[in-house]
Amino acid sequence: MSTSTPFPSDHHATLIDGKGFAADLRAKIREDVRTFHDEHGVTPGLAVILVGNDPASEVYVRNKAIQTHHAGMRSFMHMLPETTSEPELLALIERLNNDPEIHGILVQLPLPNGLDARRVTNAIRPEKDVDGLGEINAGRLAIDLPSLVPCTPLGCLMLLKDQLGDMRGQHAVVIGASNLVGKPLALLLLAEGCTVSIAHIHTRDTAALARQADILVVATGVRELVHGDWIKPGATVIDVGITRVTLENGKTKLVGDVVFDEAVKVAGRITPVPGGVGPMTIACLLKNTLTAARLLVTGKPE
Amino acid sequence: MSTSTPFPSDHHATLIDGKGFAADLRAKIREDVRTFHDEHGVTPGLAVILVGNDPASEVYVRNKAIQTHHAGMRSFMHMLPETTSEPELLALIERLNNDPEIHGILVQLPLPNGLDARRVTNAIRPEKDVDGLGEINAGRLAIDLPSLVPCTPLGCLMLLKDQLGDMRGQHAVVIGASNLVGKPLALLLLAEGCTVSIAHIHTRDTAALARQADILVVATGVRELVHGDWIKPGATVIDVGITRVTLENGKTKLVGDVVFDEAVKVAGRITPVPGGVGPMTIACLLKNTLTAARLLVTGKPE
Repeated sequence: MSTSTPFPSDHHATLIDGKGFAADLRAKIREDVRTFHDEHGVTPGLAVILVGNDPASEVYVRNKAIQTHHAGMRSFMHMLPETTSEPELLALIERLNNDPEIHGILVQLPLPNGLDARRVTNAIRPEKDVDGLGEINAGRLAIDLPSLVPCTPLGCLMLLKDQLGDMRGQHAVVIGASNLVGKPLALLLLAEGCTVSIAHIHTRDTAALARQADILVVATGVRELVHGDWIKPGATVIDVGITRVTLENGKTKLVGDVVFDEAVKVAGRITPVPGGVGPMTIACLLKNTLTAARLLVTGKPE
Repeated sequence: MSTSTPFPSDHHATLIDGKGFAADLRAKIREDVRTFHDEHGVTPGLAVILVGNDPASEVYVRNKAIQTHHAGMRSFMHMLPETTSEPELLALIERLNNDPEIHGILVQLPLPNGLDARRVTNAIRPEKDVDGLGEINAGRLAIDLPSLVPCTPLGCLMLLKDQLGDMRGQHAVVIGASNLVGKPLALLLLAEGCTVSIAHIHTRDTAALARQADILVVATGVRELVHGDWIKPGATVIDVGITRVTLENGKTKLVGDVVFDEAVKVAGRITPVPGGVGPMTIACLLKNTLTAARLLVTGKPE
């Protein structure tokens, strides 16, 4: 047993600047939207549906709408009362499915009680399913066909490819097996040629598995789950978690699923919270909307 | 470093009798088919389509047809010439999609050149896609919804559940990441609560990963890839591979992806080749056909 640290005590991981990357990506999308309009006479349009008055959801959809507008696309918000019935919601989705001005449709989750999120999500035409949460896009991702990929895992993948390039043969460990992040990201990393391990609530020794990771992705929603000694020296760490905590002085701050101050002394590269994965999600939603518009208009993804 | 073996030199793993299990399963399905007919007046029907004259495929479809018939179901074989065009094949599938006497449709792969296997597979109505290879069933499996699961991984899972019961927290390592076996089985094991690792051609140290497995599944098609020292003492080993090799005396025999004589001295339980996973595939096809019939007739899976 050695107590020496793997790096000099002043080692500091490279910070992965998701905020900057997302800003560049949004600028690029804005340019591409203009070019697309010049070539095809079509402006991509995104419809966002919010049912009920969840305050956090209201903030999210507002940000999505504003950034869509900033990217030069058309942004349509449908804010419906909590009393909306499932047939009413499905009828709206059907109308948007058939509306040629709409290329992307997103239903903000969670939905109020009484509305079946799975049935609602699957009602979105797969070509317009820019959240990538419907059965057909999930299936196409699972069997390596082109698909609309859920935005957060897509954002993680873009950061990783930018940092690491070819990832073939790297061991990626994903902690968290959700349909929204963990599982689609595991499938994306597998498609990149990574060896992939997936850990979750039932995993017996998550730390031991994490320590094998060249690429460690943490998406559990359990704040500060991953300590410095869970990380292989030099590994790339992607922290998807984001929890607001109240400090003793009454102020609040955002923390991730990784103990940042410990991890930064061991990892090679790491995403901060905030400013890491978070800003990538909406940027990838815009990217998916442009991809959907291109597919619907030209039949080709690029 | 110790050179002692983990078990006494006369240790011999328990053999997992897939042949016996499949026979029992087929007998059970035969009973269930009769009960289903008594209750609903419907006999499940499976249509198998073969295009071209590949000799191995001819044997496979013949065996599928005979076992379907033995299970008390209706079995329909459609053997088409190699010159069949894709529109002709799609028209046949469409007719079977709409035929109320047909509850399962299977297109034997591989297809002759010029026919797009993906397009053909996706043309099968998801409710009748008893091979589970279409986008919608792949997607439903990926997001933990009830689905028709590909037959070989379903067979592996049934054997594992029979041997091990609750698998939560066990580390399952799947070697081979195909759409047909490795990936769907990884998703099934994840849904059972296993920690899951997937290795493949790009994995750097497959042996080191395999040695961590409580459950080791090998589905690579590389004969005798996995040696005894890849296996953790006491692990459960599922060998999906099956390759016919010619011996020096000119006779042939079937070997798996695991060096059986070595593995049997280390593993706790192991499937032999032949007689392990192989017989489960057709039995699970029959099971899926009955499931499809039940869903189509009653709207409920059980």
